[in-house]
Amino acid sequence: MTRFMDVHHGMEGITAEQLRAAHQADQEIEGEEGVRFERAWADPESGTVYCLSEAPSADAVQRVHDRAGHPADEIHPLPLVV
Amino acid sequence: MTRFMDVHHGMEGITAEQLRAAHQADQEIEGEEGVRFERAWADPESGTVYCLSEAPSADAVQRVHDRAGHPADEIHPLPLVV
Repeated sequence: MTRFMDVHHGMEGITAEQLRAAHQADQEIEGEEGVRFERAWADPESGTVYCLSEAPSADAVQRVHDRAGHPADEIHPLPLVV
Repeated sequence: MTRFMDVHHGMEGITAEQLRAAHQADQEIEGEEGVRFERAWADPESGTVYCLSEAPSADAVQRVHDRAGHPADEIHPLPLVV
């Protein structure tokens, strides 16, 4: 398992309820891809959303986001953490 | 206090030791700016570093990073979290 940060752009104006619903949609299917979404943060002003996950691959992260209807624009493995 | 994610680009090849040293340099002076850096993650392949903090302002986050010698390329307030 690797930690990943994925980034969504173009989410200007996202609300707390929309972020919660999107995160919940991911979590409802994440187990089928072996992914665990830990946390998501949003900046409604710039329209940026960050999702932190543990997953077997970046492709698995993207499959969850695709199936939930919100594909990520960037997915970065994060082998280093402090 | 607001939560912020700041992003550094161009850090290709960053090592665990370099990330730890950079984070420690931030933490040694963060109190002077009222900032608390919580965590930092790095993707050495794309050269991307993410830092999560709580701070009074984005300017305060940048002042710490500037003084530590590694200014951020982006700083996003994160009013929403799940």
